[in-house]
Order: sequence, then C-alpha cells, then structure tokens
Amino acid sequence: MFHLFNIIGLMTFAFSGAVKGIQKNMDVFGITVLGLLTALGGGAVRDILVNKSPEMLRDFSYAGFALLGLVLAMLTRKSYKEFVHNWVFLLSDALGLAMFTVSGCLAARQNNLGVIGFIILGLSTAVGGGILRDVMAGEVPLVLVHEFYASCALAGSLLFWLLLNLKMSLFAISGISMLTVFVLRVAAIKYDWRLPKFS
Amino acid sequence: MFHLFNIIGLMTFAFSGAVKGIQKNMDVFGITVLGLLTALGGGAVRDILVNKSPEMLRDFSYAGFALLGLVLAMLTRKSYKEFVHNWVFLLSDALGLAMFTVSGCLAARQNNLGVIGFIILGLSTAVGGGILRDVMAGEVPLVLVHEFYASCALAGSLLFWLLLNLKMSLFAISGISMLTVFVLRVAAIKYDWRLPKFS
Amino acid sequence: MFHLFNIIGLMTFAFSGAVKGIQKNMDVFGITVLGLLTALGGGAVRDILVNKSPEMLRDFSYAGFALLGLVLAMLTRKSYKEFVHNWVFLLSDALGLAMFTVSGCLAARQNNLGVIGFIILGLSTAVGGGILRDVMAGEVPLVLVHEFYASCALAGSLLFWLLLNLKMSLFAISGISMLTVFVLRVAAIKYDWRLPKFS
Repeated sequence: MFHLFNIIGLMTFAFSGAVKGIQKNMDVFGITVLGLLTALGGGAVRDILVNKSPEMLRDFSYAGFALLGLVLAMLTRKSYKEFVHNWVFLLSDALGLAMFTVSGCLAARQNNLGVIGFIILGLSTAVGGGILRDVMAGEVPLVLVHEFYASCALAGSLLFWLLLNLKMSLFAISGISMLTVFVLRVAAIKYDWRLPKFS
Repeated sequence: MFHLFNIIGLMTFAFSGAVKGIQKNMDVFGITVLGLLTALGGGAVRDILVNKSPEMLRDFSYAGFALLGLVLAMLTRKSYKEFVHNWVFLLSDALGLAMFTVSGCLAARQNNLGVIGFIILGLSTAVGGGILRDVMAGEVPLVLVHEFYASCALAGSLLFWLLLNLKMSLFAISGISMLTVFVLRVAAIKYDWRLPKFS
Repeated sequence: MFHLFNIIGLMTFAFSGAVKGIQKNMDVFGITVLGLLTALGGGAVRDILVNKSPEMLRDFSYAGFALLGLVLAMLTRKSYKEFVHNWVFLLSDALGLAMFTVSGCLAARQNNLGVIGFIILGLSTAVGGGILRDVMAGEVPLVLVHEFYASCALAGSLLFWLLLNLKMSLFAISGISMLTVFVLRVAAIKYDWRLPKFS
C-alpha cells in the first residue's frame, strides 16, 4: 500500500517536471533531468538533511518509476491542457504530496527529532522537488506564491508529530496523516482555498 | 553575549526574507518559508559542508527566533520603506553578518580546516541564507551584484584564521573578528563603498 | 596525467563562471564567487551526495587553480567574444567535462553504487557547477536547454559502469571513458549535434 503510493508520487512528480520542461522548450535531456529532479529532489534533500547518502543512488526503483512518469509525459504531450487539469492528475499529485510528507516525518522520527524537525523534513520532502523544478526553470517556486499546497504538508507533519506523542501505532499515524494531507489538498482544489496575502 | 548576537542575526535575517516575500506578493506561507530559509539557510549550508545534520533541526531556538523576526516583519509592513533603510535595521543586519561569519569560522576550526576552509565556511554561513532568499525570489543574488557586503565576511574570515595562527584565545579572536566585520559593514554603508566592476 | 586534466577542468570551469559574472555586470567579488562556484560546485555536490565533507575545503589546490582561471578571465576580458568561441577554450572545457565525469564515476565505484548511482554522480559532478552558475546568474541552466553537453557526461558514465563490469583495469576504464566524453563533446561542437525537442 505504502509502496504503491510512493510509486504514484514518484510518477506524478516526474510527470509535472517533464511538463514544465516541455513548456520551457527544453530538449529531451533537459526534460529528463527536470523530471528526475522533481521526483527525486525532495527525497534527496530529506536524506542530506539527516546526513545520509540519498537512497535513490542505491535503490533503482526510484529512478525507474520516475522514468515511467517521464515517458508518460512525453507520450501524452499533445493532450496536456486537458490532462494537467484532469482529476486523475490532480488526485495522483495529491497522493504523492501525502506520501512524501509522511516519508519526511518517518525520517524525522528515526532521527529522534522534535516538532521543528518534523515540520522541516515533512515540508522539504514534500515540496523540495517542486521548488527545485521551478528554480531550474527560472521561475519563482509555485508553492511560495499561490497555492494551498505546502500548507497541507505542514498540517500533515504537525498532525504526525501530535499523534506520535499520543503513542498511537506508527501504521495508524502514517495512514491518518496521509489521509489528512490528501483530503486537505483535494478540498483546497475543489473549493479554491487561498492563503491571505498582504498588499 | 554570543547568544544575543546570534538571536539578533536570526531575527534580522528572517525579517529581510519576509520583506522580500511581501514585495514579491507571496502568500503568508511563502513569506514564512522565505524568512525561515534566509535565517536558517546559511547555518544549514555550513553544517552540510562539514557533514553534520543541521543544528536547526534539533535546537528549537533557531526557528523560534526566526519566527519572531517574521512576525515583526508582518506587523510593521506598513512602514517598510522607512524601516528597511533605518539604522536600527542596518545595524542589526550588520551584527547578524558578523555573528554568522564567526560561527562559520568556529565550524572550520572544529574541523581542523585550513585558510580556504575558513573562507568558504565563513562566507557561506554569512551569505548563504541571503543567496537562497534571492534565488527563490527569482533574482540574481544581491551580494553578487552590488554591495560591499560579502567582502566584510571574507575579511573577517581571513582575520579569524590569521589570529588563530597567532595563538590568541578563541574568545578574543571571535570578538575581534566580529567587531571587524561589523565596523567594515557599517563603514561600507556610511561611505557607500563599492567594489570595482568591469565594463 | 589525471592531475593535469583536473587542473585544466578547474581552470576552464572557473573561467566560464567569471565570464558569466562579467556579462552580468557583477562586481569583482561576485565574479570571484561565481567562478569558484562553477569550478568547485560539481565536486561539492558529488561529495555531499556520498555523505562526505567536500574535498575542496581541505585541499587547497582546488581553489588555487580555480583562482588562476578567474584571473585569466579578468585579464583577457577585452577579447572574450573571440576567446570563448576559440578552440583552445572549447577543448579545455571538453577536457574538464571528461575529467569531472570520470571523477564522479570513481566516487560511485568507491561507494559500491549501481548504474543509477554512476549516472547521477557522473552527471552531477560534470554539470553541477554549470547549473549552479546559471541559476545564480538568474538564467535557466544552459545544459537543460540547448547543447549536446550533459549527454556526453551521461554516455561516459554509462560506459564507465559497463567497462567496470567487464573487469577491466580502473586505469584503462578511466582513460577510455574520458576519451569518449571528450571525443563526443568535440564532435557535438564540430557537427552541431542537437537533441530533439517537442513543439
């Protein structure tokens, strides 16, 4: 189950990176790098922050599933406009966000971190790849400007930490946190939630 | 004393990140991330370069004081124009720069590095956060383009290494280096020092 | 021999960073930082990925030869237009690319990584510095947009891994891989190879 969500997350994140690369008129190589960076970047940042060599260097399934997402993006490139705003894509992306948030929190727990550590690792795993994607494409990261997106990962990380202190089982905590991130994100899309700005 | 300067540095750096986020029309979340990244980024780069997990993941006071700076930035946002060019802000920022330079040099000393290590760690701790702030905001880092700013950190790092080789006490070295960075920076603002360009 | 190529690589990469800084109207300090980052950035990324403190912090020859490249860039700045498109520069750059690719692969071997690890380390060592250079200069990384450049590093990394599995001597493997990257890059320039784009 976990593994399945991880695969979905890798594929949709790679897909979104490839779409950005195609929009930016990059060549096949640039598109591939941008897709891989989006899919694998968050996890690499997480591992570096807890002083580990990134898992994706050793475990081939990461790069493999990301490549699948890439190929899918290239094959369906004629139908982006519809596809990117398609519920299938948005739901997969929300699943990926939920999965990566929990994966960051699990790393925080393994390293006996406190609430700040959970928030920083949950967030950077969940949105790190997307931030790298946008910076490499010469844009201000989307998550900083106008989407109720990273906030879902923040809420999920906080919840994970709270439940952990209530001594619930790790399996239950992970499930509840993932579901919360997922539902929040879907609700944010459906009802067009926005965070306040100053002007 | 040291601790006080560190707090001042964290707060002013978070403040400057939040100001940038508000200028860029980011939402509350984006402003918060940009402020935290500016305040905590330099120290994180320093720790990663010496192969440690960043301290800010474990020590809550880092994120706490950075958040204080952020809140201050949001509360005083009506009066930026005056405030950012205000001596209170500029002096605090110079103190932060001095403090972070010395903190990078202390890490270089702990790892028995040579003069290049002192310069790289002093500089990256002092200006790393500001560079991350500007890159995330889609701008060429300010310190690379037109301010006699990073040069103060460079001078301070060199001085720290020199004094260390004169076998002075670590307390005296840190104090002298900090004071030098601070005075250089204040003089650079007062007399509008610039480094030469080619054209 | 190896050492000589490494020196050539450091100098040309620093040179290319300094040229970009001068083009962007940076001051002397900004030009220096950009040059050093371009020359040392790829190796730093490589070391961080395999969980080591970057070598350039300890081994002064890295920064030293990079500074030489910088000084050369500043001295010859009147004659860029000719110089950058000069065969001397392009051949040195191709040598640097070849050298850094192999250096990434050697790190992958030391850490017993698989083919994905060889590709990621070979690529990030070879093009990491250039990507940092372009991102800091506020541009979309050149290697992602339109040059048959990183593809040479990718091909070299794959070849290195293949030959390693054929149990050839490390010396022969390194030489053949370097030569391949070099020849591919020179051919790409000479015949103006491009990767396909979607439009």
